[in-house]
Amino acid sequence: MTSALIASGLFGRQFGDQDVAAEFSVEAFGARMLAFEAAWTRALARTGAVSAGDAEAALAAIARARPDAALLGAGSDRDGVPVPALVAALRQGLGPGPAAAIHTGATSQDVIDTAMVLTLIAVADRIGERLAALSGAVAHLRARFGDRPLTARTRMQAALPATAALRLDAWARPLQGAAARLPALRSEIGRVQAGGAVGLRDQPTGPAEAVAARVAEDLGLALGPVWHSDRSSVVGFGHWLVLVAGAAGKIGQDVALMAQQGVDEVAFSGGGGSSAMPHKQNPVAAEAMVALARYVAGQQGVLAQALIHEQERSGAAWALEWLTLPAMAEATAAALAQGARLLGSVTRIGTPA
Amino acid sequence: MTSALIASGLFGRQFGDQDVAAEFSVEAFGARMLAFEAAWTRALARTGAVSAGDAEAALAAIARARPDAALLGAGSDRDGVPVPALVAALRQGLGPGPAAAIHTGATSQDVIDTAMVLTLIAVADRIGERLAALSGAVAHLRARFGDRPLTARTRMQAALPATAALRLDAWARPLQGAAARLPALRSEIGRVQAGGAVGLRDQPTGPAEAVAARVAEDLGLALGPVWHSDRSSVVGFGHWLVLVAGAAGKIGQDVALMAQQGVDEVAFSGGGGSSAMPHKQNPVAAEAMVALARYVAGQQGVLAQALIHEQERSGAAWALEWLTLPAMAEATAAALAQGARLLGSVTRIGTPA
Amino acid sequence: MTSALIASGLFGRQFGDQDVAAEFSVEAFGARMLAFEAAWTRALARTGAVSAGDAEAALAAIARARPDAALLGAGSDRDGVPVPALVAALRQGLGPGPAAAIHTGATSQDVIDTAMVLTLIAVADRIGERLAALSGAVAHLRARFGDRPLTARTRMQAALPATAALRLDAWARPLQGAAARLPALRSEIGRVQAGGAVGLRDQPTGPAEAVAARVAEDLGLALGPVWHSDRSSVVGFGHWLVLVAGAAGKIGQDVALMAQQGVDEVAFSGGGGSSAMPHKQNPVAAEAMVALARYVAGQQGVLAQALIHEQERSGAAWALEWLTLPAMAEATAAALAQGARLLGSVTRIGTPA
Amino acid sequence: MTSALIASGLFGRQFGDQDVAAEFSVEAFGARMLAFEAAWTRALARTGAVSAGDAEAALAAIARARPDAALLGAGSDRDGVPVPALVAALRQGLGPGPAAAIHTGATSQDVIDTAMVLTLIAVADRIGERLAALSGAVAHLRARFGDRPLTARTRMQAALPATAALRLDAWARPLQGAAARLPALRSEIGRVQAGGAVGLRDQPTGPAEAVAARVAEDLGLALGPVWHSDRSSVVGFGHWLVLVAGAAGKIGQDVALMAQQGVDEVAFSGGGGSSAMPHKQNPVAAEAMVALARYVAGQQGVLAQALIHEQERSGAAWALEWLTLPAMAEATAAALAQGARLLGSVTRIGTPA
Repeated sequence: MTSALIASGLFGRQFGDQDVAAEFSVEAFGARMLAFEAAWTRALARTGAVSAGDAEAALAAIARARPDAALLGAGSDRDGVPVPALVAALRQGLGPGPAAAIHTGATSQDVIDTAMVLTLIAVADRIGERLAALSGAVAHLRARFGDRPLTARTRMQAALPATAALRLDAWARPLQGAAARLPALRSEIGRVQAGGAVGLRDQPTGPAEAVAARVAEDLGLALGPVWHSDRSSVVGFGHWLVLVAGAAGKIGQDVALMAQQGVDEVAFSGGGGSSAMPHKQNPVAAEAMVALARYVAGQQGVLAQALIHEQERSGAAWALEWLTLPAMAEATAAALAQGARLLGSVTRIGTPA
Repeated sequence: MTSALIASGLFGRQFGDQDVAAEFSVEAFGARMLAFEAAWTRALARTGAVSAGDAEAALAAIARARPDAALLGAGSDRDGVPVPALVAALRQGLGPGPAAAIHTGATSQDVIDTAMVLTLIAVADRIGERLAALSGAVAHLRARFGDRPLTARTRMQAALPATAALRLDAWARPLQGAAARLPALRSEIGRVQAGGAVGLRDQPTGPAEAVAARVAEDLGLALGPVWHSDRSSVVGFGHWLVLVAGAAGKIGQDVALMAQQGVDEVAFSGGGGSSAMPHKQNPVAAEAMVALARYVAGQQGVLAQALIHEQERSGAAWALEWLTLPAMAEATAAALAQGARLLGSVTRIGTPA
Repeated sequence: MTSALIASGLFGRQFGDQDVAAEFSVEAFGARMLAFEAAWTRALARTGAVSAGDAEAALAAIARARPDAALLGAGSDRDGVPVPALVAALRQGLGPGPAAAIHTGATSQDVIDTAMVLTLIAVADRIGERLAALSGAVAHLRARFGDRPLTARTRMQAALPATAALRLDAWARPLQGAAARLPALRSEIGRVQAGGAVGLRDQPTGPAEAVAARVAEDLGLALGPVWHSDRSSVVGFGHWLVLVAGAAGKIGQDVALMAQQGVDEVAFSGGGGSSAMPHKQNPVAAEAMVALARYVAGQQGVLAQALIHEQERSGAAWALEWLTLPAMAEATAAALAQGARLLGSVTRIGTPA
Repeated sequence: MTSALIASGLFGRQFGDQDVAAEFSVEAFGARMLAFEAAWTRALARTGAVSAGDAEAALAAIARARPDAALLGAGSDRDGVPVPALVAALRQGLGPGPAAAIHTGATSQDVIDTAMVLTLIAVADRIGERLAALSGAVAHLRARFGDRPLTARTRMQAALPATAALRLDAWARPLQGAAARLPALRSEIGRVQAGGAVGLRDQPTGPAEAVAARVAEDLGLALGPVWHSDRSSVVGFGHWLVLVAGAAGKIGQDVALMAQQGVDEVAFSGGGGSSAMPHKQNPVAAEAMVALARYVAGQQGVLAQALIHEQERSGAAWALEWLTLPAMAEATAAALAQGARLLGSVTRIGTPA
């Protein structure tokens, strides 16, 4: 959630998104941390670093584990991240061999960054679906109302007669552009993190590269170099959210302007009521889209500070990603969902006949 | 919460604050919306706008009400804000007289802004307590270690011999400065919002000013002019959070630097562990304080966009406050709490003897 | 200037302000650095730290000095700040006694921060004048058109009939609020910086406090504690600029909305032309005000990062102030100037008769 | 320049870049506006919209024109942008035929956006050169000191023994990553803007598409759809600057930490002096790089607000680009230049022998 007030539910689902939030839950994020650990154990076994039997016992322990927010949270309060507590819990009750088949050679950042990558891919796919839905809504309006007259407006002034198609095509293009970036985004963000304690994957020379390659393959990710302190792809993900939310915000701003009395270039089947003025029909979703787009845009200026990631691992820079990126994702998804609802309620675009 | 990942609890209480979050819950925020409605009804009765009997029935209905997240959230999805649904629920089953004794002459923004003011005052007091606790921890270290040698460092370089007092006094001053601002802050933010539908409190001429004055008095707030579209005090509250979080962030940054091997100007009784390097003692709280301070600082650049609040009420500008301010408050409180924990674990400040 | 493109002059004076920029020029800022050095020398003499004769020779050298951008810039490229080069130039050719009567006991930060304080006070006064001019323009419109009908609009929708006074009073209040803060702002920012090498003004015990007090008095500043690493007042200055620019931005946004065809609640005697559509009259100043307000608001999220000012002096944090604050001041002044020009061209506010 | 104080030269070239600034000067930017106009006139002639003779006379007038800051600035003060004044000046003294061969069918935004595109490509190339220089400096250090011992540090704590190669490779990767993005960036940003008055390039049906295609070809740009209100590529350019500046900022932060006494993992042949402590050697360039990276990162949160570009052309959103992007480019170039100077002065990386 973007804030405790939004998380309260008092403002409904205007500014948050349950589906995207669920991707960052203890269950979902924890499951991805466990998926990393299981892939790591399998890779250790396949590269001969641990015995098949020890790996089997370790995998059974991993399969039995259920992420426990209280235990992991307490671990984080002590260690900064939940991984030491998670690994200790996984190894609990195992003999030395199976215990050593868990996490050996990996570091907390490998687990969290890889779980984050898997989460962001899931988030990108959800947002991709919403992008498609909103694009579809725009296309539907284009088909229905594209030929209706609409005044082109520049610098807040009526400029020239045009048709609704001009406005609707301008809405469609950034949505399509963002959707077209999705494969490259998935590919850029979709790299395993497997650097070991200080990012020296291949040092001392040994099987570390082979382990990392198998973990990547197991999780459906690319390998690439260690990116412990190179946060370009994470900040790049934020940039994509900015573009998506901005595309929605432009639509919201336009709709709010079109809905003004005296302009009257859009009509709805519904709209928000007022506690003081029952006659009003507020385009509240349009305004929410603008607010969300401004919010996401501004967050990028905070997230990007994470690039100044000192030495081999910076807790201060890293945490900025956790503070901003999930909220940006939720806000972006909410802006798209609001957009689809808003356009779905449109009964006319363009000057009244 | 600042993000769904933080809200998950996986990262413990490092980046959020349950007490501050609770002030923005349906229960607490909803209770303050009801407190406004009750004060409004009483004011209507005292100014003779409604009969004592109608007010009594209305107040009974308000007293019976329990804020229902599902109902209010659904109302917000329709209306943008939960107030129309709340008012409808309060009036449910009442006769015309008692129903008219509820909310008449007020508008949604009056309810939400006033509830927000009451919430921010409660938040300020909690943060004030934490400021005092962190100041106390600094003073304690000053008393205990102030005379120990410590190298003054400027521009990341050893400059001159000094004592720990130099550093500790520099930590204390911005904390004290922020604490000293608290009364003025409470006074600036502590104004009722009571403008009516479009902010024309005194139009048509009549008892509106008297109603507003009584509501303010009832809620322990000042009156002042309508501030529907003047968000200076809200942005000013954010500024105070920035100063407080920044004071904590400076301490966190200094401690992280002091804890470096080779510098060794601070020692702790605990510290975070590592999943890969059990010998490490990470000052994770210090890094969290830096991250939180950067986060809060950056949010102010987003919150301040809310000043561009168009016409008599802007949903787009207003929502930016809800998206940012509660998260800023939580992050600030968390930074202070982390600071008190961190300094409480300090066993030495200054060069080892 | 806010950017090289704006500094080019291609966009006229819309987004910059020559008067405010001049306060940050080599001449003006350099003169204030010299004023600090002269006050320091006088204070050394008055407290008996140097002889009257040495001080006289030193003051003569300071009086002769003209800040040289090339020399000081080259010094900054070497030392980070221009002060070592400035001091070396002042001492050039002086005997040991007069040379020691210059800058002894002060540090670069004392000079730059104090010069910045004097500059910000001058900037505040210029902005105060522009605030008064814009407030006056609003008051003039209020007197002339306050009673004309104007539709109150909430959430981008026509709400209720009102008069222009409602809108104009809402413009006036944040302007007046910001003006009313000016004395407190001057008092908060108006403290000398005089901490010595590492901020230990009173250590070793000696005349440092007395020197600092006399420097403060000489420069018309308050004394207060050393604030080398406590940047609250500088960030507070930025906050004031945010409030001022936001007040202008709200007016700009409203005017742009009022000028729309179909709304027609404002008329101008001029307005921007179009290279493609000669019939258009764009309210370009109104849009510039919005852009400037968003710009200044966003900068505060960057400036506030300067609070995380590590150890006794942080070049990284400090420089953020130099990068942002002068541009914020110029943008704020430009927004006010644009506002006064815009409102001065208004020939009607409110619904056409 | 990023601010008037920086533009004063008092702080040398630490925070600005003359070469990049020059790309936004009246001469350079103005020449690109003229290049657009010339290409447009040629395209009108080639598509038969104007006669060869009229085009020839128009081209002669364009070739004679020298951008005049005073005239264009005054035009901007009236019209918001310098294009109407530029076009009027070009047409001055021409007969109706040649006058109509200038700018007909184009709009101000076509001129400014296309000139900006050409400018950003030039800027990207300059920054690309600096990226290469800084990468080269890192590679040089890698070859020279890569095998020296250096302690890997995570979360501000010594972690494990490693070699300088670990740190230097981590510096190299984001630089290489940003350089590798340059061709895609050039391709994404390198599209002509040619939409006509309201972005309806192909309406009324006619030769507009053919004109636009020839202008693009003439200027070495791609065609693509109109992007008057789709600012994704401009914001994407800002994102690239963020990545580049962040890569430099990470190096600066690391170097500042390595230069600490007690850590001593880097040595320089020079370094900044202190006015109070002549024994100090401040790594001032390292700190400047951090400040610049934080500045650029934060600007992206402001620039990205430009995505909410209402209707067919928003002066308010558009101007945010002019306010932020040139300053981001300069700051990024300065960070790279500082980095090359800093690393060029390194005489050792890694633990002293």
